[in-house]
Amino acid sequence: MSSPLLQQLVEALRILPGVGPKSAQRMAYHVLERDRAGAERLAGVLAEAVERIGHCERCRDFSEQPVCATCSSASRDTQLLCVVETPADRLAIEQATGYRGLYYVLQGRLSPLDGIGPAELGLERLEARLAGGGVAELIIATNPTVEGEATAHYLGQLARRHGVRPSRPAHGMPLGGELEYVDRGTLSHAFTSRSELT
Amino acid sequence: MSSPLLQQLVEALRILPGVGPKSAQRMAYHVLERDRAGAERLAGVLAEAVERIGHCERCRDFSEQPVCATCSSASRDTQLLCVVETPADRLAIEQATGYRGLYYVLQGRLSPLDGIGPAELGLERLEARLAGGGVAELIIATNPTVEGEATAHYLGQLARRHGVRPSRPAHGMPLGGELEYVDRGTLSHAFTSRSELT
Ligand SMILES: [Zn+2]
Ligand SMILES: [Zn+2]
Repeated sequence: MSSPLLQQLVEALRILPGVGPKSAQRMAYHVLERDRAGAERLAGVLAEAVERIGHCERCRDFSEQPVCATCSSASRDTQLLCVVETPADRLAIEQATGYRGLYYVLQGRLSPLDGIGPAELGLERLEARLAGGGVAELIIATNPTVEGEATAHYLGQLARRHGVRPSRPAHGMPLGGELEYVDRGTLSHAFTSRSELT
Repeated sequence: MSSPLLQQLVEALRILPGVGPKSAQRMAYHVLERDRAGAERLAGVLAEAVERIGHCERCRDFSEQPVCATCSSASRDTQLLCVVETPADRLAIEQATGYRGLYYVLQGRLSPLDGIGPAELGLERLEARLAGGGVAELIIATNPTVEGEATAHYLGQLARRHGVRPSRPAHGMPLGGELEYVDRGTLSHAFTSRSELT
């Protein structure tokens, strides 16, 4: 590459997930050849996002306001609280389901071996919320992994301690999915948690 | 998404080639969760690249200097001039072959239907260079596509008119394939066994 700055751009692009040396190069050439205005806009938005996007005080999701739009909305059902591991999980639920309650984003999962306990996930704030009354059901939508299940178990006990009903979305084979193409983890889980045919 | 700024970031990321809504979203979450420093660096380099990277006066490749490092190098063989369609093609040749001559980047190919003629490719500058003497061989490494071949034919005539020997990299490049994606070995072989354009 005859431009050191272009080389720097290619390297900087590699922080993006799934972007290897070849695609970083293609991206750099593409924006310089065809979309300098778009690249300038991206540079600006990216800098602003890094500076201004923090976490919502109430649900810990990404937000550039102290309290996010969902938490401050008047049209959500405040009796329902759904706990997820990541902002991406929260978005997937929001986009796929008709859920109209509130969320709580752990930004992780309990993982004692990695030193991630209740304090690291801000669970004292969640507990205060459950203790404060007003929440009738805690929907625990952590992932069906070993750590996700352990986290779900912990959260279930926490909910019961404060008189809140814990629930868990059903896990299993996707509707309309062919058994052959279901990933091993899902299939295994679906098999273990089989129910009697009635 | 509960943050409008995050939504803007996801949209801005979509200017990158091969980035759909789902991967833009994953990229945005990834940098905010795990690499804010990298994102800040990317924003800075991107803004600087858009502002400062223009084209080399001599070869039309990307460069933040009036004349790029390759063109101003004392160790290149100035008797050899290789014409390519894009900066990515130039880089592919530089990385795969032992070529030590100079380059000329068309930034396109002749395409009358799209209104791209000799003027749009800056061919008067290339012609002036061939007319000026000093170039013994013009290696025409346009893509083996219909338009690339037509461009090669035009350039071949241009070279001969000024007493410069035109050549074309040899077989090995798949017909209809794009030079940028040809594997290094094939490209290297094709380059060494280039033949004179007839
Ligand atoms: Zn919130
Ligand atoms: Zn140059």
